[in-house]
Parts: sequence; structure tokens; C-alpha cells
Amino acid sequence: MNLSNNTVERITKIYGYLDALEDREVGFVSSKELSEAVGATDHTIRKDISLLKIGGYTRKGYSVRSLKFELAEKLELNKKRKACIVGLGRLGTALLDYEQDKEDGFEIVAGFDCSINKLERIHTYIEVFSMSELENTIKERAIDLGIVTVPVKAAQQVADQLIEVGIKGILNFSPAKIVVPKSIIYLDMDFTNALRFIAAKFIIK
Amino acid sequence: MNLSNNTVERITKIYGYLDALEDREVGFVSSKELSEAVGATDHTIRKDISLLKIGGYTRKGYSVRSLKFELAEKLELNKKRKACIVGLGRLGTALLDYEQDKEDGFEIVAGFDCSINKLERIHTYIEVFSMSELENTIKERAIDLGIVTVPVKAAQQVADQLIEVGIKGILNFSPAKIVVPKSIIYLDMDFTNALRFIAAKFIIK
Repeated sequence: MNLSNNTVERITKIYGYLDALEDREVGFVSSKELSEAVGATDHTIRKDISLLKIGGYTRKGYSVRSLKFELAEKLELNKKRKACIVGLGRLGTALLDYEQDKEDGFEIVAGFDCSINKLERIHTYIEVFSMSELENTIKERAIDLGIVTVPVKAAQQVADQLIEVGIKGILNFSPAKIVVPKSIIYLDMDFTNALRFIAAKFIIK
Repeated sequence: MNLSNNTVERITKIYGYLDALEDREVGFVSSKELSEAVGATDHTIRKDISLLKIGGYTRKGYSVRSLKFELAEKLELNKKRKACIVGLGRLGTALLDYEQDKEDGFEIVAGFDCSINKLERIHTYIEVFSMSELENTIKERAIDLGIVTVPVKAAQQVADQLIEVGIKGILNFSPAKIVVPKSIIYLDMDFTNALRFIAAKFIIK
């Protein structure tokens, strides 16, 4: 399948909305409601879903359960790829303990930090390692995704190291801009940019 | 000004990119380079910038410094609105200490938690309060933005409380879906959705 990032983003938001509807035991949802939840037009949402070759739009709308099931199948969200966190400051350790009972496609299986002191003080169910064990651990555990929570100055170097040892995706929580080859899946969770977006919305309605 | 969320998002990403270029002492940037950094077409970027009534595209491209300056003026990123963090678990305390030397439009001036024990154990330069002091503190300090880092179950209630005492924007870090009135500026920093997006990109190229 070859879909734009915008489509993929809308689809994953739809999935999250269906998940919330299922918790509330809602049976059916219209494409209009989905479009409002996601912030796109009715038409776009139906097109996005049909691009995944999913049908099932009835008079009552989509069945919440079966649309959610089909999306999970298509996006392989039930499959748990392996992820690691690099940088175990407060943010990194917070993410180690993130409530992960959801189908989100990943399982965090390791944490890394360069400070042995910090590693000794961390209490978590997830195994933690020093940076010198990065290569071995990532290869042995077949880890696909690196979640980067190191300080700005170390971010690019850590990303380069992760890519060198075979990681396929990077989720960057540092405010640094990281440059990666096109073959690497990359996403920024940029707090600074989020604040700027909100600040701009105060001015631009 | 009346711009779409997509335009505002691109503009704030452009700003972040200009900021990185300025750090590297780059003088000029083409709209093509900006478009690649942001993931939109050349044409879209130039249109976004012109919607803000900013000109200055020369043969060498935009001047990094003056475009950044003009964007900061238009979006009032130099103005520091006041923000608070509600929920001082690991993520909340990590954000309290976030490296905030950047023009991002906000200054974090208070943290809140319902656990007095937790409040006593927290070491930070930013003042922390119990939830019973929420209303007074937000009104006295004229806080505009609430950053929500409470567990899923408390998220909607905390958001309702914030809105009731006059907050104008909410940045939601909890995986909960929060419902807010249309007049409230709202943004999700959804880790679960970010993981799903990356998982989907493993399948959908």
C-alpha cells in the first residue's frame, strides 16, 4: 500500500476514536462523526477508509467493532514490534512506565542510559542497560523502534548510533531536529512545537 | 487572521526549522528546502507564508533571521503567556524541568497535584500547589494554558475543572480523549497514537 502521511495520520486517529467508542460500548458510527473527531471532511474519511479496501458502510454507519478490527489487521496493530527508550531521565523513565494495555503496535522491551548511577537507581519492570550494550541488545532482541529522550545535544548522535545498529524507526521526544535517511521511519513528538502551535492559535482563529 | 490548522501547523514547523538554521548560522533558505523540512510542496509553503502577509522572497531565498523574526511577531511567540502543569507524576515533573530557553509563546508558572505527599517530595524551581488551590492560582496568575499529565481516568474531569476556572487552552498528554467546547484551543500529544502511526508506516509505505 502506498498512502500519504496525512492519510496514515487520519487513519490512526480514527482508530483511536473507535477505541474510545468501543470503551463506551457504542455500536455504530457515521463517517460524519468520524470526520468531526479527526478534523477532516466526511468525503476524505470515507476515501481514506476505502483506500485500505475496507467497506461496510451501512445506513447506520460503520460498525465500531468491525471497523476497528479491520484497521488493526491492515495496520498490524495487534502485532507487537519491539521498541526501546534511549535516555532515562524523567521523561524516559515516565515513558518506560507508560500504561501500555492498548493495541499500539509496539512493546517497550529495553531502556538505555549512559549513566551507570542512573541505571542503578531506576525501578522498573523493563530491563535497563548501559549504552555500551546498545548494539548487542538491539540485535539480540530484534528491536525495531528507538524512542529518543536524551538531551538536545546528544540526540543526533544517539539517532545515528541507533540507525547504525539496524533500528528501522525513530520517535524523537527531544526538541532537537534529527536528520535521518529516507529509509528510516521518523516522527517528532515536539513539546516546543506543540506550545508554538497553541500560542499561534491564540492569535490565528 | 483565519487560517486552517494545517497551515498553522506548517508555519510553526517552519519556525522550528528556521530556529535550527539560525543556530547553525545559515543566512538564507529556499522555499524548496523549507518545503522538504516540513513535508509539503514548495507552492504550499510560499502560500502559507504569504497568508501571513510576509514577503521578502529573494533570489537567495528567505532571510532566515528576518523570516523567523516576522513569524515570531505575527504569532506572538515572544510574548510569554502563562501555562501550568496538572499531574506531577514522572511525565509532569519531567515537563516542569523542560529546557525552556526557546521562544515558544509560553512560560510554565505552576504545577498542580492532588497528592500532598508528592508535592512535598518534588524539587523544582517552579512553584507547586495542591488541586484545592487550582482556581485561585489560575485566576491570580492569569494562566492561559493547562498541560494535562494526569492518568487517563482523571483527564476529562481535570480538563472540565480547568475550563471552568477560565483556562483558554489545553495540551493533553494523557492517552484519554478529552472533549472540550469549541472555544477552547486543544491539542493532543498522544504517545499511543504516535506509536500507531509508526506501526502503520512499517506496513504502509
